[in-house]
Amino acid sequence: MSSASPRADDTAEPRTSRKRRAILGAASTVFLRNGYVGTSMDEIAALAAVSKQTVYKHFADKERLFAELVVTTVREASDPVHDEVLDLTYSGKVEADLRDLARRQLAKVMQPQVLQLRRLVIGEASRFPELGRTFYELGPERTIAALATVFAQLAERGVLRLDDPSLAAEHFNWLVMATPLNRAMLLGEDEPPAADLVRYADAGVRAFLAAYGRP
Amino acid sequence: MSSASPRADDTAEPRTSRKRRAILGAASTVFLRNGYVGTSMDEIAALAAVSKQTVYKHFADKERLFAELVVTTVREASDPVHDEVLDLTYSGKVEADLRDLARRQLAKVMQPQVLQLRRLVIGEASRFPELGRTFYELGPERTIAALATVFAQLAERGVLRLDDPSLAAEHFNWLVMATPLNRAMLLGEDEPPAADLVRYADAGVRAFLAAYGRP
Repeated sequence: MSSASPRADDTAEPRTSRKRRAILGAASTVFLRNGYVGTSMDEIAALAAVSKQTVYKHFADKERLFAELVVTTVREASDPVHDEVLDLTYSGKVEADLRDLARRQLAKVMQPQVLQLRRLVIGEASRFPELGRTFYELGPERTIAALATVFAQLAERGVLRLDDPSLAAEHFNWLVMATPLNRAMLLGEDEPPAADLVRYADAGVRAFLAAYGRP
Repeated sequence: MSSASPRADDTAEPRTSRKRRAILGAASTVFLRNGYVGTSMDEIAALAAVSKQTVYKHFADKERLFAELVVTTVREASDPVHDEVLDLTYSGKVEADLRDLARRQLAKVMQPQVLQLRRLVIGEASRFPELGRTFYELGPERTIAALATVFAQLAERGVLRLDDPSLAAEHFNWLVMATPLNRAMLLGEDEPPAADLVRYADAGVRAFLAAYGRP
């Protein structure tokens, strides 16, 4: 671990984060293939080509490693959407911008790896509710909170008509996502046609604006 | 199976269906506790207090037994809703009737056993997509098809304004159900407060009528 050579010190951090990335990549593969209960730290270590000790140095236990996998996967899907939501506040063309947002949001949420992780978390939620909480809080809850903030501001500008920004945000979110997401969850479909997703997104925005837009 | 005594013949059918019910009840308990892969026909037979041979006489294999459990559970939840949807066609007070329907639909779908089965089916959908197909077809797909038929007739009567009855039916269904159902799926909550469900149902109907109702 410690070294007299400055060169080794220089590369220590990148090597650590490279190993961490390798472990998370292996964890994703093994968890999504074998489920939570069917996954062992041994198998993850083998696939990541590191020692089991190294896995435990980075992640205290299986639960912590899984939680970190959820954080990484959900953040990668929701961070760009979150930023785009906040940009809406000063939009001069709300309908077009909501449509762009809805299409992008749906494409992110419907990525195969995100769908598979969502199924896994749901399948284990009765026995391990803490596994799903991170997914819920970093995914839908965070996006809906950002949408609520922006919708409140758009209502103040007179662009939307609403009493309850959080409720309007829930309705926007699910008008766009519920149909394809529910299909994918139950039918195990990981790659719905992109054209279908665009159609669902646009139809969701249309219904949302019919309900909450300026007359 | 065959018997010379008329009395035995009279009771043969009830006994058979009693056993069938006992097996399905035991299957529900064991599958929901242990998951699909973790469940054995032996354990179900033991809990139902019948021989393994009897289980196989009624249900050819584990997959068939699970499919029958899905059919029974989803039908019990969706049959009453389905009938109520069809009654809407000639409703003279659409808003009140849609609200009643939405509240009842949500209460049925959010029963603990239905939520647990939905989580199980979703958790296995990547490996066993056929398990979820029955749930999807008898559950959301069937309800949405009935809603679409009724909404088309309500649009003809001028009570709703819509171009695409199926899309409007999807939007109704998910405006009412998506928020509480998604929460329950990810957080493992089996008994959301009844008052919350009423609030979600009423808010969903309000948004639906704002989008699709007569101006």
